[in-house]
Amino acid sequence: MLMDFDRIRQEAFESNMRLPELGLVIFTFGNVSVADPKQKVFAIKPSGVPYEELSADSMVVVGYDGKVVDGDLRPSSDTATHAVLYRNWKELGAIVHTHSTYATAWAQSQKDIPIYGTTHADHLTVPVPCAPPMSDKMIRGDYEIETGNQILQLFTKKKLDYREVEMMLVGNHAPFAWGKSASKAVYNAAVLEEIARMAYITKQINPKAPMLKKALIKKHFERKHGPQAYYGQK
Amino acid sequence: MLMDFDRIRQEAFESNMRLPELGLVIFTFGNVSVADPKQKVFAIKPSGVPYEELSADSMVVVGYDGKVVDGDLRPSSDTATHAVLYRNWKELGAIVHTHSTYATAWAQSQKDIPIYGTTHADHLTVPVPCAPPMSDKMIRGDYEIETGNQILQLFTKKKLDYREVEMMLVGNHAPFAWGKSASKAVYNAAVLEEIARMAYITKQINPKAPMLKKALIKKHFERKHGPQAYYGQK
Amino acid sequence: MLMDFDRIRQEAFESNMRLPELGLVIFTFGNVSVADPKQKVFAIKPSGVPYEELSADSMVVVGYDGKVVDGDLRPSSDTATHAVLYRNWKELGAIVHTHSTYATAWAQSQKDIPIYGTTHADHLTVPVPCAPPMSDKMIRGDYEIETGNQILQLFTKKKLDYREVEMMLVGNHAPFAWGKSASKAVYNAAVLEEIARMAYITKQINPKAPMLKKALIKKHFERKHGPQAYYGQK
Amino acid sequence: MLMDFDRIRQEAFESNMRLPELGLVIFTFGNVSVADPKQKVFAIKPSGVPYEELSADSMVVVGYDGKVVDGDLRPSSDTATHAVLYRNWKELGAIVHTHSTYATAWAQSQKDIPIYGTTHADHLTVPVPCAPPMSDKMIRGDYEIETGNQILQLFTKKKLDYREVEMMLVGNHAPFAWGKSASKAVYNAAVLEEIARMAYITKQINPKAPMLKKALIKKHFERKHGPQAYYGQK
Repeated sequence: MLMDFDRIRQEAFESNMRLPELGLVIFTFGNVSVADPKQKVFAIKPSGVPYEELSADSMVVVGYDGKVVDGDLRPSSDTATHAVLYRNWKELGAIVHTHSTYATAWAQSQKDIPIYGTTHADHLTVPVPCAPPMSDKMIRGDYEIETGNQILQLFTKKKLDYREVEMMLVGNHAPFAWGKSASKAVYNAAVLEEIARMAYITKQINPKAPMLKKALIKKHFERKHGPQAYYGQK
Repeated sequence: MLMDFDRIRQEAFESNMRLPELGLVIFTFGNVSVADPKQKVFAIKPSGVPYEELSADSMVVVGYDGKVVDGDLRPSSDTATHAVLYRNWKELGAIVHTHSTYATAWAQSQKDIPIYGTTHADHLTVPVPCAPPMSDKMIRGDYEIETGNQILQLFTKKKLDYREVEMMLVGNHAPFAWGKSASKAVYNAAVLEEIARMAYITKQINPKAPMLKKALIKKHFERKHGPQAYYGQK
Repeated sequence: MLMDFDRIRQEAFESNMRLPELGLVIFTFGNVSVADPKQKVFAIKPSGVPYEELSADSMVVVGYDGKVVDGDLRPSSDTATHAVLYRNWKELGAIVHTHSTYATAWAQSQKDIPIYGTTHADHLTVPVPCAPPMSDKMIRGDYEIETGNQILQLFTKKKLDYREVEMMLVGNHAPFAWGKSASKAVYNAAVLEEIARMAYITKQINPKAPMLKKALIKKHFERKHGPQAYYGQK
Repeated sequence: MLMDFDRIRQEAFESNMRLPELGLVIFTFGNVSVADPKQKVFAIKPSGVPYEELSADSMVVVGYDGKVVDGDLRPSSDTATHAVLYRNWKELGAIVHTHSTYATAWAQSQKDIPIYGTTHADHLTVPVPCAPPMSDKMIRGDYEIETGNQILQLFTKKKLDYREVEMMLVGNHAPFAWGKSASKAVYNAAVLEEIARMAYITKQINPKAPMLKKALIKKHFERKHGPQAYYGQK
C-alpha cells in the first residue's frame, strides 16, 4: 500500500508558519507536528531550519516509534517527545511546542497558571498544570523520551484527561499544547500564551486575587464544551 | 412596514473588524452589537466565527427581547447580556465586549481601576467600576441575562449613569463598554484598555500613587464633556 | 508684509503624523506645535480631529499670545500651554505633548524618572523632572495657561535650562517634550517614552538599583552634547 | 595588494538594518561591526546616521588599531570598544551593540541574568554576566577603550571563554553580543533580549524561582553545542 503524507506535510508546514505570525516564536524556537493516526506517522518541522526556508516538502515524516519514515532532513530535536505522546494518547491530531514568552516564564517559575477568570475557564477547568523538573537520572537518560514520559506522568498523577486539558508547562522548560486538529493545537498554544499573560498581570495587580468560583468554571466550560454547549455555530 | 437592517449590519460588521485591528481581541474573543432603538433591534456578531470570515450579511439581527429577528447564523453567546442592557438603557447605540488583556486582568483582580490621572478623567470622573462575582444562584440561572442584571445592579448601587460612565468590568470575567454610536463604543473599549494598562504600570511604580485631585477630575471631564466643553470641533 | 505659514504648517502636520507611527499616541491623545520665532506664531494640531483626517492645511496658526491667527478649525485644547512656553523660552522650535504609556504612568506616579543608565545620560544629566499637582486655585483659573506656568516654575525651582533638559512630566497628567526643531522634539518624546519604559523595568528587577555614577553621566552627555562631542557626523 | 572590503561592508549594512526590524533599537541606538580577521579590519555603522539613510557604501572600514582605513563618514562613537575586542579575541567575526529594552534594564539593575530555563541553557551555561560600573579613573580616560577593557577583564575574572559565552551586559550601560559570523552575532543579540524579557517576567511571578538544575544546563547546551550535538542539520 502506497502511503500518502501530503495532507500532514501541508498542515504541518502551514501550522509551523503560523507560530511566528501569532508571535509565539522567534527564530526556530518551536515546532508543530501533525499526525495521521491510521498510518501511525506524523509530519514535523526539520531541526533548526529558519521559518522562511520551510516548505511542505521539507517536513519530515516520522513513525510513532520515533524513526524517520520519509524526508531528507533531520527532524526536530524534540521529535521523540512528540512520538511518546502520539503513542499513548490515541486521539491526538497535532502537537505544538513553543517557547512563547509568558507561558515560558510561568514554566521557569515552576508554578501552575491559576484559573483567575473566564478566559481561562472557556478553555479548561483546572489550572494549567506545570510538571516538576526531571530527576537527574531521567535527564541523563533519553532526554526527549523522558520529557514525553514526564508529561504523561503529570497527567496520570493529576488525573487529567488530555482531551479536556490540551495545554501544559514543562517546569524550567516551556509549554506544550495539542488538539484533535492542527488548527486547534495552534489555537491552544496561542490561547495558553494569552492566559499566561493575563494571569501574570493579574498576579501583579493583586497578589491575593481569588480563584474563579467553581460555579463559574463549570458554567463557562459548558458554554463551549459540554453537551449543552451553545457557543459557536451548530 | 418593511424593516431595514442595512445600517446596523454594516456598522456592526465594521466595528467588529476594528477590534483585532486595535489589538483588543485575538481569535473570536469579543463582540460588538449596534442597535436601532426605533425598531428595538440590534445587529450582533455570530458566535465563534473567525474575524476573517465575517461580513455585513453574516451579522445576526436580534430583538430587544433577545430573540433572533433576521440572519442565518446563531448570534454571539453573549447576546442576552446585550439585550438586557438595550432594554434598560434606552439611549444606548452600541455595546462592545472584549477580553482585552489589561482590562481583563483588572477584572480578574476584582478591583476597580483607580483614577490615577487625566487620561482617565478625560473620559470618566470615577474609578472604572468592577462588578463583584455573581452568586451561585445567578450563575446557575440564565447566565447571560444575569450578567446583564449584574451590570445594571452595579450602576444602580453605585448611583452611576450609563451615559456618563461608558465602561465597566465584570469581576472574574472581562470588560464591557458602550456609547451612543458604534464608533464611540469601540473608542471607549480601546480607551479602557489603555487606561487599564497605564494604571497597572502606575501601581507597579508606586503602589501608593495618590488618586487624582477632585478639582482636576472635574476640570478634565468638563473640558471634554461639560456644557462649557472646549475640546474637539464645534 | 505677507506672512508665510507654509513651513510650520507642513512640519506640524508631518510631526503630528509621526506620533501614532512611533506608538506614542492612540486616537487624538497628543499634539505637536511648530514655531516660527520671527513671526511669533506657531502651527498646532486642531482639537479632537482624528489623525487620518489631518492635513497641512488643517493645522491652526496661533500667535504667542494664544490667539488664532489663521485656520478654520479650533486649535488643540492645550494651545495656551504651548503659547506660555514659546513666550518664555525664546529658542524653542517645537513642542510635543503626548499621553505615551510609560511616561504617563511615571507622571501618574508623581515621581521623577531616575537616571539609571547611559541611555538616559546620553540625553540629559538629571532625572526627568515631574511637576507636582497644581493647587486647586490654579486648576480653577485658566487651566492651560497655569499648566504652562507650572512647567516654567518647575524649571526655575530646580534651576534647569530648557535647552539642556528637553523633556518633563506634569504630575498626574502626562509628558511634554520639545526641541530646537520639530524632528528633535518628536525624537525627544520618543526617547522619553523609551527611558520611562527602561526605568520601569529596572525598578521592578531591582528596587534598589543605584543611580548612574556622576562621572558616567558627565561622560555620556559630553559624548553627544559638549564642546568635545564626538557622536554623529561633523 | 588591493584590499577588498565589499563583503564586510555589505554584511555590516545588512546586519545593522536587521536591528530595527528585530525591535532591538530605535533611532540610532545601536551598531554592528563585521570583521575581516585576515586583513585585521572591520566595517562599522557611521555615527548617528538614521537607519533609513544607511547603505553598504556608508559603512566605515576601521583597522584593529581603531583607525579609519576607508570611508567618508565618522565611525560609530563605540568604535574603539569594538577594536579592543577584535584585537584580543582573534576568532570574533562580528559584534553587536544595542540598547534593547529588557537587556538594558538588567544592565541598569547591575545584575547578572539568572539561568532560569532551557531557553537560556540552549545558548549559554552560565548567567549572562554583567560587568560592574567602571572606576572614575577609567571613565575619565579613553572611555571607549576602557569599555572594551572592562569586558575583557570581566571574562578573565569569571574565567569565561568568549567562544562559549557570546553575550554580556555592561553595568549601567547596555548589552554587547558577538559571534563567528554577522548573522550569529545578530541572532545572539535578539536571543539575549528574549532571555532578558523572560527572566524579568519569571522574577516577577516568582522572586524565588530556582536556577535551572546543572544536569539540565549541561543537557540543553550539549544538544546544540557539544560534540554530540543533535540540534539543526548536519
